[in-house]
Amino acid sequence: MVFRILASLLFIESFFLFLSTIVAIIYSEPVYALIVPTLITFVIGAFGWFNTNKASKQIGKREGYLIVSLVWVVFSLFGSLPFIFDGSITSFTDAFFETMSGFTTTGASILNDIESLPKSILFWRSITQWMGGMGMIVMSLAVLPMLGIAGMELFIAEVPGPTADKLHPRVKETAKRLWGIYSLFTVIEIILLYAGGMDFFDSINHSFTTMATGGYSTKQASIAYYDSAYIQYVITIFMIIAGVNFSLSYFALKLKFEKVYKNEEFRYYIGFILIFTLILTTIIVSNKNFTGFEKSFRDALFQVVSLITTTGFVTADYLAWGSLAAIISFSIMFFGGSAGSTGGGIKIVRIVLLFKNSYQEFKRLLHPNAIIPVRLNNKAVDPKIITNVLAFIVFYILTFVAGSVVMASMGLEIDSAMGSVIASLGNIGPGIGSVGPMDNFANIPNAGKWVLSFLMMLGRLELFTVMIIFTPIFWKK
Amino acid sequence: MVFRILASLLFIESFFLFLSTIVAIIYSEPVYALIVPTLITFVIGAFGWFNTNKASKQIGKREGYLIVSLVWVVFSLFGSLPFIFDGSITSFTDAFFETMSGFTTTGASILNDIESLPKSILFWRSITQWMGGMGMIVMSLAVLPMLGIAGMELFIAEVPGPTADKLHPRVKETAKRLWGIYSLFTVIEIILLYAGGMDFFDSINHSFTTMATGGYSTKQASIAYYDSAYIQYVITIFMIIAGVNFSLSYFALKLKFEKVYKNEEFRYYIGFILIFTLILTTIIVSNKNFTGFEKSFRDALFQVVSLITTTGFVTADYLAWGSLAAIISFSIMFFGGSAGSTGGGIKIVRIVLLFKNSYQEFKRLLHPNAIIPVRLNNKAVDPKIITNVLAFIVFYILTFVAGSVVMASMGLEIDSAMGSVIASLGNIGPGIGSVGPMDNFANIPNAGKWVLSFLMMLGRLELFTVMIIFTPIFWKK
Repeated sequence: MVFRILASLLFIESFFLFLSTIVAIIYSEPVYALIVPTLITFVIGAFGWFNTNKASKQIGKREGYLIVSLVWVVFSLFGSLPFIFDGSITSFTDAFFETMSGFTTTGASILNDIESLPKSILFWRSITQWMGGMGMIVMSLAVLPMLGIAGMELFIAEVPGPTADKLHPRVKETAKRLWGIYSLFTVIEIILLYAGGMDFFDSINHSFTTMATGGYSTKQASIAYYDSAYIQYVITIFMIIAGVNFSLSYFALKLKFEKVYKNEEFRYYIGFILIFTLILTTIIVSNKNFTGFEKSFRDALFQVVSLITTTGFVTADYLAWGSLAAIISFSIMFFGGSAGSTGGGIKIVRIVLLFKNSYQEFKRLLHPNAIIPVRLNNKAVDPKIITNVLAFIVFYILTFVAGSVVMASMGLEIDSAMGSVIASLGNIGPGIGSVGPMDNFANIPNAGKWVLSFLMMLGRLELFTVMIIFTPIFWKK
Repeated sequence: MVFRILASLLFIESFFLFLSTIVAIIYSEPVYALIVPTLITFVIGAFGWFNTNKASKQIGKREGYLIVSLVWVVFSLFGSLPFIFDGSITSFTDAFFETMSGFTTTGASILNDIESLPKSILFWRSITQWMGGMGMIVMSLAVLPMLGIAGMELFIAEVPGPTADKLHPRVKETAKRLWGIYSLFTVIEIILLYAGGMDFFDSINHSFTTMATGGYSTKQASIAYYDSAYIQYVITIFMIIAGVNFSLSYFALKLKFEKVYKNEEFRYYIGFILIFTLILTTIIVSNKNFTGFEKSFRDALFQVVSLITTTGFVTADYLAWGSLAAIISFSIMFFGGSAGSTGGGIKIVRIVLLFKNSYQEFKRLLHPNAIIPVRLNNKAVDPKIITNVLAFIVFYILTFVAGSVVMASMGLEIDSAMGSVIASLGNIGPGIGSVGPMDNFANIPNAGKWVLSFLMMLGRLELFTVMIIFTPIFWKK
């Protein structure tokens, strides 16, 4: 049953590999590096499909968690083939890291000379992020009717945030709407970027990786390559949109703006962006290498948005702004986008619930016997959700610490160890230290790349979905 | 009312200042630096006492939090006078920092040449820690009958840990027993250290600061000064005892050993010490500068115990053991002693509850409608306590992050900023970076010393007690 679903998902991967093959044909590039993986993926998918039984029983929670976790591993295994066949990445570890970084929309790269890669390979690299952004399961729910029966379980396991919003009573309809909005915004961004003078191929790639909050660029210098305020602002705006709960975007498209601006998570999300931008702008302006107010504001805004949405695009080296800016940038990495967005990290709603609950704790100190609920959007939040959110945040931080210890044990400096871990766990991309915005992950030891790949998956699936598989209770009858 | 209690507590401080005066007389040192503060404290205490009305009404929670917070500030103000009058510390900021560091049992020092100080000043410095270890309120509860009426409120606000154990239905009796055990262990340690060849004066001082998990030493080199395995093991054992819930020590003294070894927090506390010692020993042994197995084990054990109990004594430079050892040491700083001990930090029981709850979260994922309680010592823990513990841990980490940002904004490197903050907030003493075990806090900017002093108080009173005073709900009628 689990294998059958994985097999059917491989058809989807082979479809997108086929799209990349077409790109290779268009640009007259060697085709075999893409057509061979397309066929392998298709054949193995078909083999799995015909050698498993038809779905007879309902998929349970356990199978749901297993499928969602495995699909990222399987996709990354097959998705790394083009890099290997093309020869652009010679080591399997590196290829797997690059692909997992793509599917999890992390955007951490081991490539030192991105412009030298064939366009078709770059396209595949961007499309891994676009697929991973909305999620393979959500995608398949929209496409494959057979998953409908177990849809909700898979949907909950994959969609980020403490609760999964439904735009439609039927999961399949919800998934269709989500992919519709996602595609629509991607197309609009392509048009706007192309109108601003970015070449068509780059517009497509950057739009894919913006909406996925992925951060892969077709340029080694990332968005700093484009010395255009227009392009940088367009990308900033679409990063902000990608970091908003897609349910809210859906309401906005239906012109129900009240639902959007009355949403507390949205307000805090915008508030955090404004506050951090104000702080970083002040820091840059007070620096010696001040290059004009608009540029300082734009750099600050772009970096804040890129980090809080966990996109990881770069227009400036935030580590060059001094240690205060570095610590603030580092702190922003823990925030993350909104629940139900493509952004990674802890997520704004959890941070908000944390602060609200802390304030309620003070009240509880003074009135120990009163029942004082936490309210969000004027509704009392179930105490179970509060406990879950707090447990998640602490677990997240512990995973970060444990990961940093492991990376430090491989010889990384403390700041690089912490930077590489939060950049992976938060699905951001660039971190601090030796994996800062001007560097990449090429020099991380191989074992470290596997650890970071695992952290990317943990972060993308919000810890519990993956971790539960490693607990005895999961396997208990 | 609040003033009257503070005034009465000043009598206690003046009594201990008087003890230090006697030490000055014994060692024929200038007496005025101690007798003048003794008199000032006594006179102001008396003035406050006679100009306030007798306790008429019950002390409420609000007054309790206010008193407990203010007493540390007031005590540090008066307690810094000997350093200033003696001239051993010339700046008021430094003197206040050193005294707050004493009363909160942090042990972070700005002194560069401790051996040059008069013995009476060193004695006062050690006694601030001894007073702060068990807590001024707990002390006064044992001594001052007038506080009896509000005792429990103050007791809860001051005693560390999520719940306050009562050894006796009457608060006053509980306080008496706690101080009795505390004094008894201090005396035993004095005898054992003296028997091991430490001079009598140093034995007293080190016993005071061991049992308080304070970490002030009469030697610049701290315990590394004593090249005696016996002395180092004795101090290690008493640090371990000081980090145990004093209720358990009480049971142990009554020979109810079963209550001790069946206590889950105690088991985890010992378990964490053993595991971390094993890891650090392995690291030291595999280092190039390996100097024998016993010495490596002793250094590792001493450092682990010193950090987990938040004492802060030093026998070796853990930063010289490589970046992995540094990160592990840094992580241990977040643990802290047991609830109801003199140790600071997050406390073992909170860490244990956190892990237990996280495991239950997995179960809740699979059975969302079941009520799955967290159990400690075979009893279900109230979900309110779980929420409080989780909120505390996250708040602790946030305070740590915010503090690090502030310290970095004053020009400290990232590791020094984080090191100085956790060393203060956790009431440890030495941190990492420029405030590591071989350095001190003298070079921190003045503003930074005030921030760290505040963090020490926050940490000692476990955040909420102090923070609640700064919330609007506290002042609302």
